[in-house]
Amino acid sequence: MATDVNRQIVLAARPDGNPKETDFTLREAALPEPRAGQILVRTIWLSLDPYMRLRIGNNEQYYPAVPLGDVVVGGAIGQVMESRHGGFAEGDYVEAYSGWQDYAVLGGGEARKVDPTLGPLSTALGVLGMPGLTAYLGLIDVGRPEPGDTVVVSAASGAVGAIVGQVAKIAGCRAVGIAGSETKNAYLTDELGFNAAINYKTGDIGAALDRACPDGINVYFENVGGAVSEAVYPRLAARARVVVCGGVSQYNLKSPQTTLSNLQNILFTEAQVGGFNIFSYAARYDDGRKRLAGWLAEGRLKYKEDVVEGLENAPGAFLRFFDGETFGKLLVRVAQ
Amino acid sequence: MATDVNRQIVLAARPDGNPKETDFTLREAALPEPRAGQILVRTIWLSLDPYMRLRIGNNEQYYPAVPLGDVVVGGAIGQVMESRHGGFAEGDYVEAYSGWQDYAVLGGGEARKVDPTLGPLSTALGVLGMPGLTAYLGLIDVGRPEPGDTVVVSAASGAVGAIVGQVAKIAGCRAVGIAGSETKNAYLTDELGFNAAINYKTGDIGAALDRACPDGINVYFENVGGAVSEAVYPRLAARARVVVCGGVSQYNLKSPQTTLSNLQNILFTEAQVGGFNIFSYAARYDDGRKRLAGWLAEGRLKYKEDVVEGLENAPGAFLRFFDGETFGKLLVRVAQ
Repeated sequence: MATDVNRQIVLAARPDGNPKETDFTLREAALPEPRAGQILVRTIWLSLDPYMRLRIGNNEQYYPAVPLGDVVVGGAIGQVMESRHGGFAEGDYVEAYSGWQDYAVLGGGEARKVDPTLGPLSTALGVLGMPGLTAYLGLIDVGRPEPGDTVVVSAASGAVGAIVGQVAKIAGCRAVGIAGSETKNAYLTDELGFNAAINYKTGDIGAALDRACPDGINVYFENVGGAVSEAVYPRLAARARVVVCGGVSQYNLKSPQTTLSNLQNILFTEAQVGGFNIFSYAARYDDGRKRLAGWLAEGRLKYKEDVVEGLENAPGAFLRFFDGETFGKLLVRVAQ
Repeated sequence: MATDVNRQIVLAARPDGNPKETDFTLREAALPEPRAGQILVRTIWLSLDPYMRLRIGNNEQYYPAVPLGDVVVGGAIGQVMESRHGGFAEGDYVEAYSGWQDYAVLGGGEARKVDPTLGPLSTALGVLGMPGLTAYLGLIDVGRPEPGDTVVVSAASGAVGAIVGQVAKIAGCRAVGIAGSETKNAYLTDELGFNAAINYKTGDIGAALDRACPDGINVYFENVGGAVSEAVYPRLAARARVVVCGGVSQYNLKSPQTTLSNLQNILFTEAQVGGFNIFSYAARYDDGRKRLAGWLAEGRLKYKEDVVEGLENAPGAFLRFFDGETFGKLLVRVAQ
């Protein structure tokens, strides 16, 4: 039921290093009213994703930071409560970057209608949403996998990594995942069909990569950085592709990390290393979503959700990205 | 005049860290005799290039190392003394990777006829040879410059860097060079038409780049690595391209250097970083050479040579790459 209060989680302090729950504050605002051309949307699901750390920090080469006192950005699924836009009707489900709040007023260009017949509603934030498209388009457009290639993905049990490995398998590649627990790795190999999975918290990553990738690494899908990355670059095969999609190990650092130089690895292998930002690929979303939905319907893509109840618990859940304690797509249920 | 002695410089010891003159030995061998299908070539010019350091080291991701006791590899121009191959006549000039020796016997596929009307013979090892093609193809095929782009090149007064900047100008870009002396920088701006030149040995490279590249760096042509690279990556513009063509600051290191991570710079800018090895671009040589020769004839490309006399002086000259003491294309005149 709609109320006349809009709970919002706003940025109270800019994180310096690791974010803390006190960097976020819950405030109550009045229910916003849509004007002509706008819709009022009630949030059902929030998507939590590592890139959001970058939006609340100060990174001059990235997007402008969320201002202090503003609602925290993030993707969400909601339902239209009131429409003053011809393209949307009351009851429609929409996806929008409406942020951490109960309600949002949006222009028509800010919302995308979700087809609830493609899968459970929450999949529009996961396998059929930004993480799935990131995995598919990053792998296909930047990673350019060829049948027989060995594809290595870090944060492999996460919302993006799990799809990367499964799409790699569909593309005829060998998929090798790197994740942080035996439970996650068993899931990757036994449930998702990865050829091998490596626990980066135990043992020698390099030796494990040597065993899992005897012919070298043709595609590396980078979500993590740090020690994992240092182990991968010396094992790149000739003309390897690296998709730099994320670097969650780096996001809380106060200054750039010192790491082993990858210059000679890139030079010697003629690797192609490409930064990937899903928001630059809007023209490819429809194609990507159609393919992902097809594979999902055929049972060729599986996904796992990690659901947290209640808007007020979003900040605490978000912090779990930085200690490796997420497993599957992290979602906050704001309303039923 | 041909003699019956073939002086050869062979690899006596594998360099561990900085190469030394004692890593090389001059030995005298018998004049080789061509068999059917072969030619005997007398070396006139040797090309010295930084990549040769990689060939005498042990780099598992690169080419196999030159074995101890073998003639040191390297490009050369020579004249055919005797031909038992239908494609070559006595007196023809040829380019080949025949190495540091007075004479070589080559199969037809190992030699390329040089057209001496395109420019002085030595240009076939410089602006019309491997360095020129490296500059042209690396910049165009991997750097993909667009008119108005700011192109930054390190080792800018070297055989490759000087051509990179001049081709960038021809392509309608701003060219910014990084080199190691005021004399070199004056040459870049006053003689070659670079828009700005930065001395990496004095002052703050980052601040100088900020002044020279107020809109960021669209293309970085990497020849050096190390501190220069660390200053460039945070200044890349959106969708920048980095041509990883060399890393002369790294070649003598016993283990990979630690450096500031470039992961977030690549991620935030969606940069495309590509390793470039000229030997993979053979199909593009004719096109590249034709364009370079045209610009040379039109006076739009200038070049500078740094000539050392005598085969026996090749090792000492080669060591100059690693203290920044070369200026222009480094050549050894072996015979007149």
